[in-house]
Amino acid sequence: MSQKAFQDHYPDDLSYCYGCGRLNEHGLQIKTYWEGEESVTVFQPRPYHIAIPGYVYGGLIASLIDCHGTGTAAAAAQRANGHERDGQTSPRFVTAALHVDYVRPTPLGVPLEVRGRVKEIKGRKVVVEATLSAEGQVCARGEVVAVQLPEHMMREQGIRESGDGISSSLNES
Amino acid sequence: MSQKAFQDHYPDDLSYCYGCGRLNEHGLQIKTYWEGEESVTVFQPRPYHIAIPGYVYGGLIASLIDCHGTGTAAAAAQRANGHERDGQTSPRFVTAALHVDYVRPTPLGVPLEVRGRVKEIKGRKVVVEATLSAEGQVCARGEVVAVQLPEHMMREQGIRESGDGISSSLNES
Repeated sequence: MSQKAFQDHYPDDLSYCYGCGRLNEHGLQIKTYWEGEESVTVFQPRPYHIAIPGYVYGGLIASLIDCHGTGTAAAAAQRANGHERDGQTSPRFVTAALHVDYVRPTPLGVPLEVRGRVKEIKGRKVVVEATLSAEGQVCARGEVVAVQLPEHMMREQGIRESGDGISSSLNES
Repeated sequence: MSQKAFQDHYPDDLSYCYGCGRLNEHGLQIKTYWEGEESVTVFQPRPYHIAIPGYVYGGLIASLIDCHGTGTAAAAAQRANGHERDGQTSPRFVTAALHVDYVRPTPLGVPLEVRGRVKEIKGRKVVVEATLSAEGQVCARGEVVAVQLPEHMMREQGIRESGDGISSSLNES
């Protein structure tokens, strides 16, 4: 697939998120793409992402829906601004609220597919609805209220520290 | 502190949860205790649990609230059944719904304190409200609807696999 993932449009110094930062080597590094009006992330949990035996840990499901939602919000804003294809970095969104309904236990050992849809764009706020499915069955439904990162947080935090500085500090444990 | 954590009462074969299982060496291994009517978990995020520089990743916050909530539900059920002090293993709860409001950015580098309170116990369902604070400031508020694990899931899944079997399978990556 030659299409770039949403997360590959984030500026380097904002690409260290544990859930979706391409530069966080400890993280999940999810990748999200458009399929028409829907956004899609496929993620393969590790064996240790277990809840009870045979099932995926709910915190991972919440994390996937969360970063899928902020990624979809960023891509939707970029699309709305007409910057989708001009190579510009996309705005970064943070989560204001997250809701997850666990519809059925999510089996461990198979890829999980998160599909999102923009429910609302209003100013700096984007609301994304998502489902998480395994083997074609919806296991969880979620909603993410994402808000564009305020400029002062990008200026104070993101730009103050260089990518290299962040990268080396992540290796402390 | 001589008091055992809630999670130390889970039966071994249900103690592999990535968020709270004491036997998952890859996981967060949170520990929750009563303080009167409130439950308390203190967790120190790793440097790589980053969102944007300087702040904690929202998925970790959701995960802490989730496992704190199911742990509190288990301990509350054990207390309600009169088994708090007799050394019995506690029931295990799974999450039916999780809601998190991110009130302010959560600073990375300091311990996080999750405090929970039982809002409702009704049959197999326990609703837990929680706050997550850093340096005395509430950064997130959450609610967990927890449901006691159905017997057939404990029987089919938990007891089918031995602790040793689960443990070795977790080391596949």
